[in-house]
Amino acid sequence: MSLPPIMPAQLDNEIRRIFHDEEFEEIEHKLNYVFQNKAYLVSAYTHPSKSNNCLLISYERLEFLGDALLDFLVIRHTFLNYDRNLTPGRVTDIRQDLSNNNRLAYILVSSNLHTKIRLNSNELSNRIKSYLNNKNIFPKTQSTNDRLNENISQWTDTTAPKILADVFEALIAAIFFDSGNSLEIVWKIIEPFLGTLFDRSIIDPNLNSIRSFINKGGKILEEFVDETGAVCLVQMPDGSLYEGHGKNKKLAKYDACQQAINNKN
Amino acid sequence: MSLPPIMPAQLDNEIRRIFHDEEFEEIEHKLNYVFQNKAYLVSAYTHPSKSNNCLLISYERLEFLGDALLDFLVIRHTFLNYDRNLTPGRVTDIRQDLSNNNRLAYILVSSNLHTKIRLNSNELSNRIKSYLNNKNIFPKTQSTNDRLNENISQWTDTTAPKILADVFEALIAAIFFDSGNSLEIVWKIIEPFLGTLFDRSIIDPNLNSIRSFINKGGKILEEFVDETGAVCLVQMPDGSLYEGHGKNKKLAKYDACQQAINNKN
Repeated sequence: MSLPPIMPAQLDNEIRRIFHDEEFEEIEHKLNYVFQNKAYLVSAYTHPSKSNNCLLISYERLEFLGDALLDFLVIRHTFLNYDRNLTPGRVTDIRQDLSNNNRLAYILVSSNLHTKIRLNSNELSNRIKSYLNNKNIFPKTQSTNDRLNENISQWTDTTAPKILADVFEALIAAIFFDSGNSLEIVWKIIEPFLGTLFDRSIIDPNLNSIRSFINKGGKILEEFVDETGAVCLVQMPDGSLYEGHGKNKKLAKYDACQQAINNKN
Repeated sequence: MSLPPIMPAQLDNEIRRIFHDEEFEEIEHKLNYVFQNKAYLVSAYTHPSKSNNCLLISYERLEFLGDALLDFLVIRHTFLNYDRNLTPGRVTDIRQDLSNNNRLAYILVSSNLHTKIRLNSNELSNRIKSYLNNKNIFPKTQSTNDRLNENISQWTDTTAPKILADVFEALIAAIFFDSGNSLEIVWKIIEPFLGTLFDRSIIDPNLNSIRSFINKGGKILEEFVDETGAVCLVQMPDGSLYEGHGKNKKLAKYDACQQAINNKN
């Protein structure tokens, strides 16, 4: 299958006006991947608000494909490597955890891959700035490596601007097309960014707080949505109650069960 | 990447006891693909109720991977072939339409690929029989080709036993592993089974039930996930309620809107 028709080759001059050689090198060094066709890289960094040029498209399509590709590769990786120990249910947990936009946003920023994003929206720029300045999520002293290997479950509920996850997913699809549809190259490049997620998911049964909670005899009492978001009320067999909060009911339930489990361990 | 460790090579004797050579040939002829490792094929046809043998696993894992692979390949195909005419929104429609279990079940049965399924459950066998005997869905006089090219949107709402879609998805993953992780071979084999779906999706704006539903003044009342999967409750302007179900919230919403639209057309 040939390269997709979304990247006209004659764009080269225009692309060189957008990013200097040093900028390409900087991104490619962080990614550990050199693009044959730099248009893919520029496109992955171009928010729709900036793609007024009808030749050079935004990351919209790449993001869409990258999302599905990441999902597929994560499932393949878990099946190939953790095999018999891993039920489809546990793979679902990992998949959900990874497709969490806040996790992907965290990965992009922790790896310093967010600095070249091209957008034309003050509001969105400000939202990105305020996310980057959240010192709870990004302590100044931490290295990229430490960040990627941190257990960031507690931050998956913070609201990172979606554009950050979108760019990460678009980069995945950009590498896929640029490498001539190579699943192996894509996986080799992105796996290091996923950090210790897999190992942690296999080792740490707490990842699936909901299942552990139910196994310990806990009960979901109530789930509802109010002005502040979703709320979930759960009860342990000894009668103790925990209230979880989240953006949606699933996250609220996760939060409540995690509280209950942590207090009982 | 080497073949996954889910298929021990020493299974050959056992596999030959399950399917005769003619049976392998029959399936492979219909699929237009010859398996190097027949264990993949047997596994794709083995329901968990039948996998009492701890060496030969059921299709459970293959189905899981095949589902994500189909999703990814469909998105790639639409982006590569319909490019500029196709918004991500429309691609979402096609994706949802394809991951609809009833459509995949219909494809499996229309192609006569369901006859070798191995299961050990009377209830499930009876449910399959009653689906196959539905003459509205499968008129006796229709050829496989006619069936695959039929606009089956009206049947995507009937409830085909999930096992039929599962086997189709498992076959996709089985071909993927057997072909040495080749996206191109998988796509070449499965594309003919998808029939005229793509062309029809480009032409037929009715495919997007959610958009039509909103345009008609419908409202999404509630979306949540329970043990059975995702559920979505919607309401038409006249007050009538519809409950949709699906593997995720998007599919549940699609299902609910499709019901509402069909009843109002």
